Parts: sequence; C-alpha cells; structure tokens
Amino acid sequence: MKAIGFKTSLPIADAESFIEFQKDIPTPTDQQLLIKIQAISVNPVDYKVRQNSLKDQTADSPKIIGWDAVGTVEAVGPQVSLFKKGDQVFYAGDIKKDGSNQEYQLVEQNIVGFAPKNLSLAESAAMPLTALTAYELLFDRMRLSESRDKGKTILIIGGAGGVGSIAIQMCKKKLGLTVIATASREQSKAWCTKMGADFIVDHNNLLEEMKGIGHEEVDFILDFVDVNQYWEAFVQLIKPQGQIGSISDPTKPVDLKQLKGKSISFHWELMFTRAMFQTADRIKQHEILNTIAKWLEAGEVFSTLNTVLNGFNVENLKEAHRQLESGSTIGKLVIEF
Amino acid sequence: MKAIGFKTSLPIADAESFIEFQKDIPTPTDQQLLIKIQAISVNPVDYKVRQNSLKDQTADSPKIIGWDAVGTVEAVGPQVSLFKKGDQVFYAGDIKKDGSNQEYQLVEQNIVGFAPKNLSLAESAAMPLTALTAYELLFDRMRLSESRDKGKTILIIGGAGGVGSIAIQMCKKKLGLTVIATASREQSKAWCTKMGADFIVDHNNLLEEMKGIGHEEVDFILDFVDVNQYWEAFVQLIKPQGQIGSISDPTKPVDLKQLKGKSISFHWELMFTRAMFQTADRIKQHEILNTIAKWLEAGEVFSTLNTVLNGFNVENLKEAHRQLESGSTIGKLVIEF
Repeated sequence: MKAIGFKTSLPIADAESFIEFQKDIPTPTDQQLLIKIQAISVNPVDYKVRQNSLKDQTADSPKIIGWDAVGTVEAVGPQVSLFKKGDQVFYAGDIKKDGSNQEYQLVEQNIVGFAPKNLSLAESAAMPLTALTAYELLFDRMRLSESRDKGKTILIIGGAGGVGSIAIQMCKKKLGLTVIATASREQSKAWCTKMGADFIVDHNNLLEEMKGIGHEEVDFILDFVDVNQYWEAFVQLIKPQGQIGSISDPTKPVDLKQLKGKSISFHWELMFTRAMFQTADRIKQHEILNTIAKWLEAGEVFSTLNTVLNGFNVENLKEAHRQLESGSTIGKLVIEF
Repeated sequence: MKAIGFKTSLPIADAESFIEFQKDIPTPTDQQLLIKIQAISVNPVDYKVRQNSLKDQTADSPKIIGWDAVGTVEAVGPQVSLFKKGDQVFYAGDIKKDGSNQEYQLVEQNIVGFAPKNLSLAESAAMPLTALTAYELLFDRMRLSESRDKGKTILIIGGAGGVGSIAIQMCKKKLGLTVIATASREQSKAWCTKMGADFIVDHNNLLEEMKGIGHEEVDFILDFVDVNQYWEAFVQLIKPQGQIGSISDPTKPVDLKQLKGKSISFHWELMFTRAMFQTADRIKQHEILNTIAKWLEAGEVFSTLNTVLNGFNVENLKEAHRQLESGSTIGKLVIEF
C-alpha cells in the first residue's frame, strides 16, 4: 500500500519534506481496527510534528503522521466488539502511533466513532480532531452545561480556525452561550458569522474592540492561538470566577498567580491525552465521536470543511502543510483519496 | 463599643501588634446587617494581613481585621430582606471592609447565613471562612458532583488545617471520594483520621508515601499549603485529565505547561472573590452558608473547632495569632466574647 512520510524534519519547500513509499498492509490485533482510508484532514499538530519530531536526525523508515480520517473497517482484531467489517468510521487517532497519511491504518476501537451517515466523505474527515478537542475542553475539562451556563459569554481566540469553527457552533447550539470570536480579515470574519458567532472582534486590538461591543468582561475564554500573546488581556477580560481553556503551546511561563484574586480556573486540553496515557475512560472518545456524528446528521452542528484537495499524493500533502503553516486557513482542509 | 486593631504591621510579640480602642456602633444602610458578635475564629489570612497590610506605615485609626463570626442581628438596613433583628447568623465577611475583631460589625446580607441551631457558638464561629472556601473550590470551581465523581481519589495537602479539616469531610460525605490527607505529627494524623480521611501520608516524603499506600496517582489534588513547594510532586501525582485546586500564595512562578500533556485543570479559590468584586451571584454565599448549617445540624459534617479562648481581648487575639503563625494549629481556634 501507499504511505507518505518523512525521514527528517525539513521545510515544506524541500523536495524530501514528504516522500511516498510502499509498506505492507498490517494485521489488526487485540482491539485494533484496520481502516481503509477514504479522506483525511490536516491540522496544525501535523506540521508541528513534521517540523520538530526528526530535527537534526534521520529515521530509518519514514515517519507517518496525520490525525484525522474517515474510512471503512477492513478487518478487526480478536477483541473488537464495537465495529465490524464494512462499517464507515471517523477518528483522530493516537499521536504515539502511525497516523492517517497512508492507505490503511490500524487504530484502537475505543477512539473511533461511526461516521455521520448523511455527510460527504470530505465533510466527515474534517471533523474528528477538532470536534473532540472542542468537546473535551467544554464538557470534560470546563464541565460546562446548558442548564448551568446558558446565557453566559465566551470569547474564542482564533474563531475561524479548525477548532474555533466547531467550538463556536458547540457554544451556541449546545450551551446557549453568547459567543464572541476573534478574526481580523474580512473572509475570516464572515466565516465566524457563518459558524454562529454573535460578535466578531479583531484580536489586534482586543481590549478596545471588546469595549466597543459592550463586553469588557466574559465568563469564559478559549485560547486556540497563543496563551503568552494574550495573557495580559485574559487577566483583564476574564470575569471573577471565570474559566480559561487553552490548547496552545506557550514558549514562555505565564504568571498564574494573576488569576488568583478572581478565583479563575485554567484548563489545558490535549485531544491526545486519553490515547497517550491509555486512560481507563478512553472509550469516551468513541462516545463523543458518535455524539458529534448525531449532531452532524441532525444538522445541529455542521461540518467546518472549507477546502478539498483531490488525490492522496505528496504534492497535495505538501500543499496542505503550506496552507496550514501560513496560519491563515479558514475552517478545515481535507484531502480525498 | 470595644474593637481591637493595629496601626502598623508589627511582629505579634510587639506590645502594639494589637491595640484595644473604642469606636461608635455604626448604623446599617442599604443591605447591611448590624451584628452583635458572640464569637470569632482566626484564620491564616488574619496574620498575613496583620503582617503585611500596614508595613512601614502608620494608619490614623486602627485597622480592624478578622473574617469569621457568629452573632445576632441587632439592626437591619432599609433594603434587607433575608434577615430580621434577633436572627442568629454566621459569616466570613468582606476583606475590603472592617472585620470581626470588634463587638459590633456591619456586613452585607448576601454573604451571611443562618447559624446552625444545635451547635455551640464556638462550634459555629469555627466554620464560615473555611467551609465557604472548601465548598466553593469543590463545587463552584472544580464543579465536582457525587454523581460524576464518586469513587475517585483526592489528595489534600494540609489535611489538619482549618480548610483541610472541612474539605476532608465534604470530600468523604458529600462527594464519596477516597481521601488521602497529608500530616506529619501524631496529633495531626489522628485529627485527619477523625475528619474522615481514608489514608494519611507524610508530606515530607510525599511520593514515596503515596507509593506506599498504592496511590501513585490521584484524580484531584487540593493544595492548602504551598503550590511552589509541591509543584513537581503535583505534576507527577495528578492523573491524566485531573484537577488541581489551590488557595495558596506562590512566591515563585509555576511552570503551567507541565500540566498540558495530561490535560489538567488548575483552579484558584479565594473566598473573598465574590464580595471583593461584588459579583452578581454573591448571594450564593448566603445559600452556601445555609447549606453548611443544614449539614452541621444534621450531623453530616461536624465542626472543626479544636481550641477555644475565652474573652475578646488583646491577649487572646495575640495568643490566637501566635498559634496560627506557628503553622502547627490543628482544626480551628475560636475566641468567645
């Protein structure tokens, strides 16, 4: 089968930044599914791993990344109970294992969901990683609920990105929050409005813009960009007893004590935690994906797909990384096989 | 009326560290209650404010501190709706206002509860600040609930202290958690057991002791001592997807990013937040205190009172601060008027 990977971390413009190669189709064991992949999507974690995981070293065999896919179950391991051959599934996967940049992939059943029935392959492939991230952050980490939190306000930094796009929808449709999203370009502002944001503010002038819309304070903040860059603004904007959630990778320490006077909670979310640590509750990702699929099927939330590239090949994967690295992609980018 | 305060921050051994003086009994306005105080308790915040708030300066009139009291409503402001003259109440108060180290005190009705009916004055006076702190941290910040969290494990740093003592009880009786409390002296270990802790570990050898009791990881950690001192241990001991709550005052930054891989939540709790910021939901403290009173009346939790000094005078207040400053008090210390 065909796979695409890299033996060393290189700039995307380098001829060898991605290389195509052949490998054997593996056999599922234990709780593994063998998936025949139909479409994948690309996330910022992909280029971060490509840029950093094999810096100044060369692997013997190419490293396969990619953590979003839709496909069909081709074979199941002996302990598989949730799926059978032929099921159409979607999943993000496990960062410690080979990713979805290949024609067939092994993945543990507990972190796989049934793909939504009435969406295109590309629409489905766009969702797992970002929807899991937004869901886990809002419901598992912050423990928000419509009954407790309806009517409160949330500021989402990076509203037009992949996670931002689905987070806006969940906050509006599943929690009844007033959603303020950051965006600066006309295209990304229009996208945030389409996702359901009540207000759009420019992150280049955040405090003034928040004042301008009459929300000098918010109950919750989701940071999908850079906790260092916005820290002072967060300290000011967050309401007493508020909550801040982040998925970003701060390079400098943050002064956590600044949040004490207001009794603030700070939450990290990493979608890979459950798989990485093989937590006892990792089947929750199976359940979350099934919930997301139901929401998508019912039209309660909609796919954040924005761009489709046709054909699983090195050029398309390089193009996808180029676009993601630019930092200006809107919604999700999918490669159909 | 008699009040006790200080004009400058002095060591407790100094003759002027506390001074007695007379002031007029004030008149309640708006939503204020005038309380005739019957007993107060002393908390670490008291000596921290005494030691630091008037450093290298001298106030014109003495500063009155103290944030725990039981007493009777002597008069009410024109907008008071929750209480009437004669009601017996307990409360912690507002750090921005005069405290309870005086015979009569004004306090806003929203942060006052009805005192438990079948407890002694001293038993009641021991509870407000610490019970509010533990309740807000567990239920409002961490959003724990018996239905969601029963059977999980919690490590409480500083189990025999005021907040630790009531937190142990709430975790056991109201959340069904397995409680591991830290203590090192025989007396404090016995106290933690009396409060209901399932395991006691010595904080001087935390990681080894946790291993010894077969709990190398816990779902939740409450830090009532020093987040800097235990940070590396917390990073190691906290389970993936766990929560850490703290009321301590770190003097050094903490490396928050160390918690990302496990998707950890970090919560600050400051019992004064609601009153300081006059939050719209501050009547929640009235409700929490009423809940605590019901729990106490029903014997579901019990008072953490351990020491009573008789008589509201400078000597007893100095003795209380001396004991608290030693860092070795167990449970709560109360001064009866």
